[in-house]
Amino acid sequence: MTLSTLSGEMFIGFDRVQGSGDTFRAVNPATNEELEPEFALGGDAEVEEAVRLATEAFDTFRETTPEDRAAFLEAIADNIEALGDELISRGAAESGLAEARLTNERGRTTTQLRLFAEVLREGSYSGVRIDPALPGRTPPRPDIRLRKIALGPVAVFGSSNFPLAFSNAGGDTASALAAGCPVVVKVHNAHPGTALLVSSAVTKAVRDAGLPAGVYSSLLGSGRSVGTALVAHPGIKAVGFTGSRSGGLALVAVAAKRPEPIPVYAEMSSTNPVFVLESSLPGQVAEGFFGSLTLGSGQFCTNPGLIFVPEGAAGDQFVATLVGLVSSSVGQTMLTAGICQSYVDGASRLAAIDGVTSIAEGSSGPGENAPAAQVFSVSADRFAEERALQDEIFGAASLIVRYSDLDHLINAAEGLEGQLTAAIHCADTDVDAAHKLLVILERKVGRILFNGWPTGVEVTHAMVHGGPSPATSDSRSTSVGTLAIERFQRPVSYQNVPSAILPVELQDSNPWNQVRRIDGRIEGL
Amino acid sequence: MTLSTLSGEMFIGFDRVQGSGDTFRAVNPATNEELEPEFALGGDAEVEEAVRLATEAFDTFRETTPEDRAAFLEAIADNIEALGDELISRGAAESGLAEARLTNERGRTTTQLRLFAEVLREGSYSGVRIDPALPGRTPPRPDIRLRKIALGPVAVFGSSNFPLAFSNAGGDTASALAAGCPVVVKVHNAHPGTALLVSSAVTKAVRDAGLPAGVYSSLLGSGRSVGTALVAHPGIKAVGFTGSRSGGLALVAVAAKRPEPIPVYAEMSSTNPVFVLESSLPGQVAEGFFGSLTLGSGQFCTNPGLIFVPEGAAGDQFVATLVGLVSSSVGQTMLTAGICQSYVDGASRLAAIDGVTSIAEGSSGPGENAPAAQVFSVSADRFAEERALQDEIFGAASLIVRYSDLDHLINAAEGLEGQLTAAIHCADTDVDAAHKLLVILERKVGRILFNGWPTGVEVTHAMVHGGPSPATSDSRSTSVGTLAIERFQRPVSYQNVPSAILPVELQDSNPWNQVRRIDGRIEGL
Repeated sequence: MTLSTLSGEMFIGFDRVQGSGDTFRAVNPATNEELEPEFALGGDAEVEEAVRLATEAFDTFRETTPEDRAAFLEAIADNIEALGDELISRGAAESGLAEARLTNERGRTTTQLRLFAEVLREGSYSGVRIDPALPGRTPPRPDIRLRKIALGPVAVFGSSNFPLAFSNAGGDTASALAAGCPVVVKVHNAHPGTALLVSSAVTKAVRDAGLPAGVYSSLLGSGRSVGTALVAHPGIKAVGFTGSRSGGLALVAVAAKRPEPIPVYAEMSSTNPVFVLESSLPGQVAEGFFGSLTLGSGQFCTNPGLIFVPEGAAGDQFVATLVGLVSSSVGQTMLTAGICQSYVDGASRLAAIDGVTSIAEGSSGPGENAPAAQVFSVSADRFAEERALQDEIFGAASLIVRYSDLDHLINAAEGLEGQLTAAIHCADTDVDAAHKLLVILERKVGRILFNGWPTGVEVTHAMVHGGPSPATSDSRSTSVGTLAIERFQRPVSYQNVPSAILPVELQDSNPWNQVRRIDGRIEGL
Repeated sequence: MTLSTLSGEMFIGFDRVQGSGDTFRAVNPATNEELEPEFALGGDAEVEEAVRLATEAFDTFRETTPEDRAAFLEAIADNIEALGDELISRGAAESGLAEARLTNERGRTTTQLRLFAEVLREGSYSGVRIDPALPGRTPPRPDIRLRKIALGPVAVFGSSNFPLAFSNAGGDTASALAAGCPVVVKVHNAHPGTALLVSSAVTKAVRDAGLPAGVYSSLLGSGRSVGTALVAHPGIKAVGFTGSRSGGLALVAVAAKRPEPIPVYAEMSSTNPVFVLESSLPGQVAEGFFGSLTLGSGQFCTNPGLIFVPEGAAGDQFVATLVGLVSSSVGQTMLTAGICQSYVDGASRLAAIDGVTSIAEGSSGPGENAPAAQVFSVSADRFAEERALQDEIFGAASLIVRYSDLDHLINAAEGLEGQLTAAIHCADTDVDAAHKLLVILERKVGRILFNGWPTGVEVTHAMVHGGPSPATSDSRSTSVGTLAIERFQRPVSYQNVPSAILPVELQDSNPWNQVRRIDGRIEGL
């Protein structure tokens, strides 16, 4: 399917539906030009219908075999690839991101889907535990078996900065579908065309697999109406969100008013502090930092917005190199005019804070909405006093905090809010200092990395893209990597259930070859 | 230590502290007599000090070896046993529970502690995942390793109905300590003496293990002041609660107002519906139900408050047998005068609902606060209309719902709120009907059991004592069994961390012999 055959609709199950609300067009942020076709927002009626279908589909979908769900995820990946160049060019036009970046992002998206297929085939995702009956005990112990089941229909919010990998068929959707949860996506209004193309790929896979229509829907609407209605709907049993702190906290607040609490996995803001120990300087630290800071116009959740650099000659040299690089940099188009304006406003606010010095600014880019990269500096003492210096600026701006000794650094680490990541740069001679930092930082972050940069989040088994509040609303999981499937499951015990109706995972003969824990020990270990 | 040497104090770390608030005495509910010694409530100052100590202890405690924490848990169990008869007699005096029951409950408590010691030694609790570096990939993949770390200080609320197994050193405390979280207990004011004795046992184990004082504190105070202050305190990172729906929801509301959201594991109310299929009758179903209903005066979270019985002769015979048993039963002392009054009021409210018939009532017991068991009946049609018929009555009261066919039963199952358990009684000839119910009920409950009764919750690996709201505030875990440790952990990734400072669990040589997942596959499988 192409956009010309999909003009301005949304998918509610298999039905292509025209919204009855306000109409809008996507905007190319590089030119501020509106793109065809016209889209129309949905409202409560579309939410109702999508959730009704999802609820209806749930029992059938959650009881598909792991092999069937694996093949379904792979079919989505294949169908996304089959969309070909139109997906890339439409994504680029709607986001201002380069085609090469979007081609990479498509690869990340299909990799994620296929990785969850592997998780389903590997067979430990359902967490099977069997405690056999002990009829000779006093009193006799019954037979007790546990599996994790899918939570129910999940609302997923598309994110502006990853139109593919964190949107309609992104990580939240892939992990929810893998768990057996139907998904209702609230499309990000910056990329309705990209969303529609991806939705056609997902819907085709649903249909080809013979699954019920409600396994996937994709709604257009405003965050305030459709987004709120989705999170408040009693049929929705979990929420996945990647975006701003204000957006995430608003959804958390909506969920908190529900009679039935549900998990809300909102991945929000992070300044991703970098700690440069003197032993790592001069090295290539300034160059690496500049690359990570300006990558994709700084529009990553893991963009390094805060860097601690020692006072003295080596630190001065780092700063001088960085100033040179930033000053000669050229801005790239940001995702939307609104995001660009927020970046400019955020940088102005930071510059106005007492003790903050603007030390470097690049040039604006040639297109629209392509602001200059900016770097600021402040002392560690001042940083310790002023909480606002920890606020995220989404984009290519960073604050250098100059520190005089390890105590300052440790003090700053202790004062940090929750973060997605923290990075430490050091040589082997400094591992003792680094260890002191590590013990503090692991309480504050989801991922600690050494001698590298936080951008570039591997999609793998050991990845945590998460962390304590305010980085996310729930630190107990990750939105990237295979552990993400656990967000959409809950455990159920089966006691003395007749073997004829035991769920397949729990049957003695283990037909799906699940990894099982018998009396507390993993079978085969 | 004995109560005479522990008069009226609370433990804040190693310090025995006299509260500065109102004084009170425990009351023996069987006689309404006040017991010595006098206790004094604490307030904000005690909360501050306990949380400060817990925060201070956290880094040391969470990095103890699994073997050291296992030995510590075992020492707590040993010390509780060493309290001897005084613990049992004091527990009985404060709760009205029989000494035999409390002796069993002590066994359950020490079993839990020792089971978590086994979990720590088994070595999969920290969820280690290692994705080795792929230097030859483009771009090279870094080395990424994941472990779960402890969340931080945990607030645990003692429960009235299990002065030992769900209170100071109960399941929440055992699982939090196993995870490496310091614990601050808010004592249930019905059993301050029992709490003090148990606290002396825990504190001795902390001291003997050379652990920091803040690993365990135990506060006396009102729920509204001390309980609220604890849950609102920024130093508290998770909450474990077992009690009433109103109490649990109040804590959830306090937590929802925190700037930093935290997990609240409130195990609240459940009617634990029982579905009797005709094929299981007459059998011994009525006798079994009567035993489960009246056990411990019905004061279990898993007490069966709702039973679906077929219309017709077999169902009539079940009811007749049950009426006979209940009518000749004698009430047992309930935990407190307040709980007794709530039971009486709840039964009156139920009796007043249109369509409800009181069909049997036993006699009150000889002591104080020992109300009669009661059974009511209503039609399935009426049940479907009236939500209030699902309200829990804590105590030995139950509602029989008479149904005419499977459709009525399925309709009733679909209309149920979230529950801790559901039970199905059927013969082999009825497994198809039972399967239809099972598929619905697994969406509604934490545990499904066949041809048995929900009371008697095994402490084991495959147990789920949890379930969807309103049974609990978070369906993703359990408060009984070894899976409970996961409530108090979160994952952290370590990327390219120098081997000299890698956490022990993540070191190549695997010194603690952890179960590890390498590139997505469990090592050794």
